[in-house]
Amino acid sequence: MRDKHYLMVPGPTPVPPAVAAAISRPVIGHRTEDFARINQQITEKLQKIFQTQNDIFVFTNSGTGALEAAVANTVSPGDTVLSLITGNFGERFAKIARAYGAKVIEVNFEWGRDVDLKVVETKLAEHPEVKVVLATQNETSTGVTNDIAGIGALVAKTPALLLVDGVSGAGAIEIKVDQWGVDLLCTASQKALMLPPGLSMLSVSDKAWKVVENNRSPRFYFSLPAQKKAYKKWNTAYTPAVSLFFGLDATLDLILEEGLDNVYARHALLAKAVRSAVRSLGLKLLAEDRCASNALTGVWVPEGTDVDGLRKIIKQQYGVTFAGGQGILKGKIFRIAHMGFADKMDVIIAVSALEMALAQAGCSVELGAGIRAAQEVFLGRAE
Amino acid sequence: MRDKHYLMVPGPTPVPPAVAAAISRPVIGHRTEDFARINQQITEKLQKIFQTQNDIFVFTNSGTGALEAAVANTVSPGDTVLSLITGNFGERFAKIARAYGAKVIEVNFEWGRDVDLKVVETKLAEHPEVKVVLATQNETSTGVTNDIAGIGALVAKTPALLLVDGVSGAGAIEIKVDQWGVDLLCTASQKALMLPPGLSMLSVSDKAWKVVENNRSPRFYFSLPAQKKAYKKWNTAYTPAVSLFFGLDATLDLILEEGLDNVYARHALLAKAVRSAVRSLGLKLLAEDRCASNALTGVWVPEGTDVDGLRKIIKQQYGVTFAGGQGILKGKIFRIAHMGFADKMDVIIAVSALEMALAQAGCSVELGAGIRAAQEVFLGRAE
Repeated sequence: MRDKHYLMVPGPTPVPPAVAAAISRPVIGHRTEDFARINQQITEKLQKIFQTQNDIFVFTNSGTGALEAAVANTVSPGDTVLSLITGNFGERFAKIARAYGAKVIEVNFEWGRDVDLKVVETKLAEHPEVKVVLATQNETSTGVTNDIAGIGALVAKTPALLLVDGVSGAGAIEIKVDQWGVDLLCTASQKALMLPPGLSMLSVSDKAWKVVENNRSPRFYFSLPAQKKAYKKWNTAYTPAVSLFFGLDATLDLILEEGLDNVYARHALLAKAVRSAVRSLGLKLLAEDRCASNALTGVWVPEGTDVDGLRKIIKQQYGVTFAGGQGILKGKIFRIAHMGFADKMDVIIAVSALEMALAQAGCSVELGAGIRAAQEVFLGRAE
Repeated sequence: MRDKHYLMVPGPTPVPPAVAAAISRPVIGHRTEDFARINQQITEKLQKIFQTQNDIFVFTNSGTGALEAAVANTVSPGDTVLSLITGNFGERFAKIARAYGAKVIEVNFEWGRDVDLKVVETKLAEHPEVKVVLATQNETSTGVTNDIAGIGALVAKTPALLLVDGVSGAGAIEIKVDQWGVDLLCTASQKALMLPPGLSMLSVSDKAWKVVENNRSPRFYFSLPAQKKAYKKWNTAYTPAVSLFFGLDATLDLILEEGLDNVYARHALLAKAVRSAVRSLGLKLLAEDRCASNALTGVWVPEGTDVDGLRKIIKQQYGVTFAGGQGILKGKIFRIAHMGFADKMDVIIAVSALEMALAQAGCSVELGAGIRAAQEVFLGRAE
């Protein structure tokens, strides 16, 4: 049925009606008091959500743009960068650092596992010249959440800056920028923040500013000093996606209205239900529960099953879109997102579509078993 | 979660995004060529859907207004009206006829059952003075569909007019106005036609026009002759709800694009899945399968269960809204609508919410059993 779609990829994610309505408001000029007022409100709300007193800027570009802005403003050619890689987006962060002439020390963890803090401690001790550490809060390609608090505590003992890719974590999984020592946090609009793609948000610590101001890499659109100057009047350096700013203001209200703790607890509950359902269907999860993401879940396809064929059934017959695997996991896993504008019934939809598609793909599956497992989690009857 | 609602009452029903977008278009003046063009398109599309060459008019009022317009234009004080009642909306139709001074012969069928054609045949034979017959295509209060083709064939042998309340049937269950001899069909926007409330549509046969023109009841806003005159220029007699006309034009496109047969088959499939799921949970259906509606399903609450308490759990904890019972069925049944912008996953949501709420209300229920039954229908594995 046309328009009857359930978008369950890890970004873009569904947009709540109140946010869509805000985006539809008549556009205003961005060099106006009206825009400045909205931009100031947005900043204050973002500071609450990311638990920081640091500067926060909103850029009009995708999350990758935020990662590049973070690197371009802190990495000079020849600098040593320690890159903690747990998947495809960790690799991308390292690639950006190399593009800016960094000497990148890559530490690769098995895809589906999280960063081992002992390895980080060892690497930092071995390489006192490290100027910047790159980490991913929530690795979108695997559905793994890394211990940013733990990484932050180690980096804080060194002069290095900690740059965190929080693109798919922000709004779904707690992050305490100040307490955890995150120097630059990069996030984006189209994941748990429940907006369409087009905006990214970047926080900058005092420790980072000293590096930023003296950095030798070329930067113009992504210039943090230019943005800082504009923000003194609650303006942006270059033309912002005004409509998405309206939407951002509205979506941050929704998050704060629900309450940060409730938002995180909701994501944890949905993730637990999905994992329980997947297990009860006899499928294997990519990540261990210990580090499994609350924003999305990676699932190994049953042996001998064509993942694209399975996803095609799920999409065409039930209107549900799951993501496939990326990089080395392509063709081996699928990913179910449960972030942002998602609640219990979205899990029920995902699991039911999966059950029927598995049956149609010839897999052995007990219809309703996954649903029952998810329901037991929702009813508080599960472990 | 705010804005995460699943509206499953038999009107209003959810509005598809394409229709909501059409409704949001800038309003235009109604005495314009632009409006006339849209109104003409709407009429032609409605004629296809109701399978008629008769005049069709769109009125700006609820379905009850359409019922009143039908009566006000065909019933004069003292006229004899045969009223075939299978539930609350049949009763309302009779009440309107009495308000216009008709002598109403009420034939009451048990709520949950359909009109018995033999009774109709007998009553028509006993009362050759009957001028108008009132029937309900789909009785919203019980979830029963009446045999309009059968009733029409009987009425066609008499000089009486057949007035049909098609409010909750239109767009979900087939109606062939010309072939079945429906003289006035009354429908409304907010059910299977996937629009918000505010519009009603009325078709008028040639047989009816002769009566309408000579009718002695007072009518102004509901005047069919006034509307007919305005429609000669594709105008409406009085100010129309312009935005809803935009939406009507868009929603009729969606229906014709999907194809009438496909639309009716989809409703039949969803209804079958709901009935199968409800049965497998050990609950009893109000209507026999033979006359059960494809647009909504009435379900007896398990003995000793408070239906309002059950509906409250379903609403507050899962965001799903079911309807309660009406009239003599109040407190005894609940109703699940599956009409209009509804597909397989809506059934899954309804059944899953019902299963969990039953468990929470202390009923004995096998979690997932209803889902499995619905899935088996969708997979073509059920009877």
